[in-house]
This record gives sequence, C-alpha cells and structure tokens, in this order.
Amino acid sequence: MNIKRYMIKDTNETRLKDLDPDELGEFKSKEEAEAKTEKLKERLVKLQDILFAQKKHSLLVILQGMDSSGKDGTVKHIFSGVNPQGFIVTSFKKPSLEEEAHDFLWRVHMKTPPKGYIAAFNRSHYEDVLVPRVHGSLSKEDAKRRFRYIRQFEEMLAEEGTTVIKLFLHISKEKQLEKIQERLDDPAKHWKFDASDLQEREYWDDYQQAYEDVFRESSIDKAPWYWIPANHRWYRNYLALKIVVKTLEGLDLSYPKLNTPTPDISQLISPRH
Amino acid sequence: MNIKRYMIKDTNETRLKDLDPDELGEFKSKEEAEAKTEKLKERLVKLQDILFAQKKHSLLVILQGMDSSGKDGTVKHIFSGVNPQGFIVTSFKKPSLEEEAHDFLWRVHMKTPPKGYIAAFNRSHYEDVLVPRVHGSLSKEDAKRRFRYIRQFEEMLAEEGTTVIKLFLHISKEKQLEKIQERLDDPAKHWKFDASDLQEREYWDDYQQAYEDVFRESSIDKAPWYWIPANHRWYRNYLALKIVVKTLEGLDLSYPKLNTPTPDISQLISPRH
Repeated sequence: MNIKRYMIKDTNETRLKDLDPDELGEFKSKEEAEAKTEKLKERLVKLQDILFAQKKHSLLVILQGMDSSGKDGTVKHIFSGVNPQGFIVTSFKKPSLEEEAHDFLWRVHMKTPPKGYIAAFNRSHYEDVLVPRVHGSLSKEDAKRRFRYIRQFEEMLAEEGTTVIKLFLHISKEKQLEKIQERLDDPAKHWKFDASDLQEREYWDDYQQAYEDVFRESSIDKAPWYWIPANHRWYRNYLALKIVVKTLEGLDLSYPKLNTPTPDISQLISPRH
Repeated sequence: MNIKRYMIKDTNETRLKDLDPDELGEFKSKEEAEAKTEKLKERLVKLQDILFAQKKHSLLVILQGMDSSGKDGTVKHIFSGVNPQGFIVTSFKKPSLEEEAHDFLWRVHMKTPPKGYIAAFNRSHYEDVLVPRVHGSLSKEDAKRRFRYIRQFEEMLAEEGTTVIKLFLHISKEKQLEKIQERLDDPAKHWKFDASDLQEREYWDDYQQAYEDVFRESSIDKAPWYWIPANHRWYRNYLALKIVVKTLEGLDLSYPKLNTPTPDISQLISPRH
C-alpha cells in the first residue's frame, strides 16, 4: 500500500465529500489489518531508537479532525509502544490568557520536538484558522496572513531538521453522532461528553469547508497533509501508523559511529586462567 | 533630534567604519544630556503604564553589539524605572544542549513579550548569524536561510502586535580595549572579565563585516535597526531611551474605556450628614 494515495496534493480540488471515511484500503478483514499494525509498531520502536541515538532528525505529527474523530485514540494506539523518554505529546485546548496574549504560534513552537524526539500535537495551530473562521471572528484576510505564517513556520522547522506530517482524521457526520451517543450510553465514557460538541456539530458544513481551506493553504511539500479514513478505528490506526513509519524510513537514520577508532579493551580484561 | 537619523536604511551601503562611535548628537555637555534622559525616563514610565493597561501592543527591544559595547549597562539604565511587572529581560548566552537541539528561533520565541509587556533581549537570535559565520561553521547559504527565517519571524511578530526594534551599540576597537583594561584594573569589575573576549577581539574585522551582513539582510520596515554611538555611555543611554520612547509614542496607546456606561455609584456612598 502506497501512502501517497492519501497525501493531499491537488489542493485546489480537494473536496471532503469526495473522500470516503469508510474506506478500508486493501484489507479483507480487521484481523489482517491488526496483524500488520502489530508489525508496524515493532518497526516504529526500532526506528525511534535510532532516531533518539542519532539526534539528527526529529518528527512532528500533527493530528486534526472533527470532534470525536479519534485523535486521542490514534495517539494512544500508535505511540503506546515507543520509548516515552523520546516522545512528547501535547494537547492544545482553548488558549489560556497567557497564550492568548502571544502570537498564535508561540505555544506550539515551544512544544516542537528537539532533535532525536517524536512529538505529537493533538490539535494545533490549525485550530486558530478553523474555529474563529467558522464563528466569523477571523476575517478572510487575517486567515490568509495566518496561513502564510503557518507555511513559513513549518518550512523553517522542516529545513532545520524537524520533519512535519499532518494527519486529518476524516469521519462522517453520522459516525460522529454515533460516537457522541456512545459517550452518553457508556458510564465509562460520560467524562468525554461535552455539550458544546453538539453545538459545534451545527457548524459541520462550515468546518468541512474551513478544512478544505486549510488543505489548499497549507499543503506544502515539506509538511504534507494526509487524510485518514477514520470511520473504522482499526483502519485509522493502521494507516496513521503506516504513514509515521514510512516517514521515518524516508530519513537517513543510522546509529552514530564512534569518532575515534574503537579502543582495544582486550588488555583491560583480566585473564581468567 | 530625529531618531530616523540613526535608523539603518540604505542597507546596501552601510559600512560601520563610516559611522562615528564618538558622536554626541546635538549636545554641548553631558549634564544637558542627563537632564533630558531623566525626562525621558519619566515619559517611559507613563507610556509603559498605558501599554500595560491597554494590553493591545507589546514592544521587543533587541540589543546587539561587540563585547564590552555596553548592552548590560544600557538595559540597566534605560529600564531601571519601569514597572517590573510589565517588563521581561532575557540574556541569551551560549545555547544549552536543550536549546541547541531545537531550531535557533525556539528559545527566543519563548521569551517574546505578551501583549502589554516590554521585553529586552540582551543578545538574541542574531548571535546565530554572527558567531558561527565569523568562525566558519555556518555557510553563506545557511546564513541566507537563517536571515530569511529571521525576517519572517520578526514580520510575524510585528503584524501580530509586537513592535520590534533592534539597537546596535557601536563602539570603537580602542574603546573596547579600554573597557577590558577597566575590568582588569577594578576589583569590582574582575567578574566581568572573560579571557575569551580577548580571543574574539582578534576577529574584530570579521565581526564588523558580519554585522554589515546583518544590517543588509534584516533591516526591514517592520523591525528596523538603529545604530547607537556607544563610546560615551551617557549619549548611548540617552539615544537608546529616546528611540524606545519615540517608538512607544508611535503606537496608538490609550487607557481602555469601560465598555458599559460608567455606573452611578453616588447612591452607594452613604451620606456623611
């Protein structure tokens, strides 16, 4: 399976209604996908180990999607096996007063990964071109300017050693309602229910359109967007993980070599006999 | 006195050797300048109070200059009267391992002022296009790229509400030696002496040229460079302060008004008689 199929490219024409959130790729069964997902997890652990040892690259994975699209679940599933010492995840909520008093990139820049690390953003600076856009508090012109800052920022990160990938978890409007209902039905999920999610649901079409703007304005070679069919969580997990692994494989990862010739330590070992 | 005279503009032709570090402007005596400096300090305190109350703008003052050019002294003198609650000063030293593992703008972005604040940078991201350039560890091409990031970063800050000014404290090579000698002679100044300053002094001409590159590459309307004749500290202090005050006066500062009509509290005051 070639992940390029999910890369958002011809950005002037990306319409979310043409992308099927129910898609299951090449798989015939869930079990088949889950077996492959396990293999990918093992591969990710190995790649992260080299990334961390080499301290040359870093990886930033930005997760976006409608409410209930499975951002938390994706982070949990695909990164559960990695070495936590080399991994940082940040969930960006409604900005604090301190954050609001700075430019909108301030709080995200702070959380970018140092060399050797993988970072995941659960929501991100893209919220600042989505929410205020949908609710009419950000003019088209101001949005354009923010998109320019975003492109420049991500390009800088990429050129300075941080590979940036952006995953859009794509669910259907029906699927969202189903998930909200689950939250209401299952006492173990009550805490996830937020009445404002139902309010935001009223703006579904506006959000879809705002996302299409995002894709058009910020699909850059150095920090590509991928769309992930997310109605089925097992395919969502498989594909997101696959994209992360393939991206890491595209870097020139290798364990660092000793600078000096390997010291001869045989003389330091006291003979047994 | 018009501060525009010290703004670095025709950047292709700025040669430091044509700028006189001994200049004293319009002043006949030190006393005259010091009296005006005191008045400016009072003005700054008032302007900062409005800036802080209004929480609409912020000001970033970047100080650069050769070793011993008086960066610490300038910060101390011009900002000693301001409300510390609305003022942040950061001295950027040799990057830590953590800082080095991020892009070079990471640590400075974190220290930019929130709305309502004044921030001073004692050294800054400009060190990253000076030191490695002089010592040959940054190629011309990489420097060009960094200059592009700097322009984009400062423009973003400016457009998002942070006014950026950059002050280059200009001293002569002889004056530097004099100051280093002072540090050796005065026991109260011994702690300021650093043997590596003498080493770096060997690269004087290379640094001057690297600064000329800085002016050519980063003199943008939204974040201008000013050169400050700094052989005489009283003129240096006067001029730096003047530029800060004039910049603040150029913003539309005003105390915020109550959103609602002023409540009539007369009825709440119990009559004395």
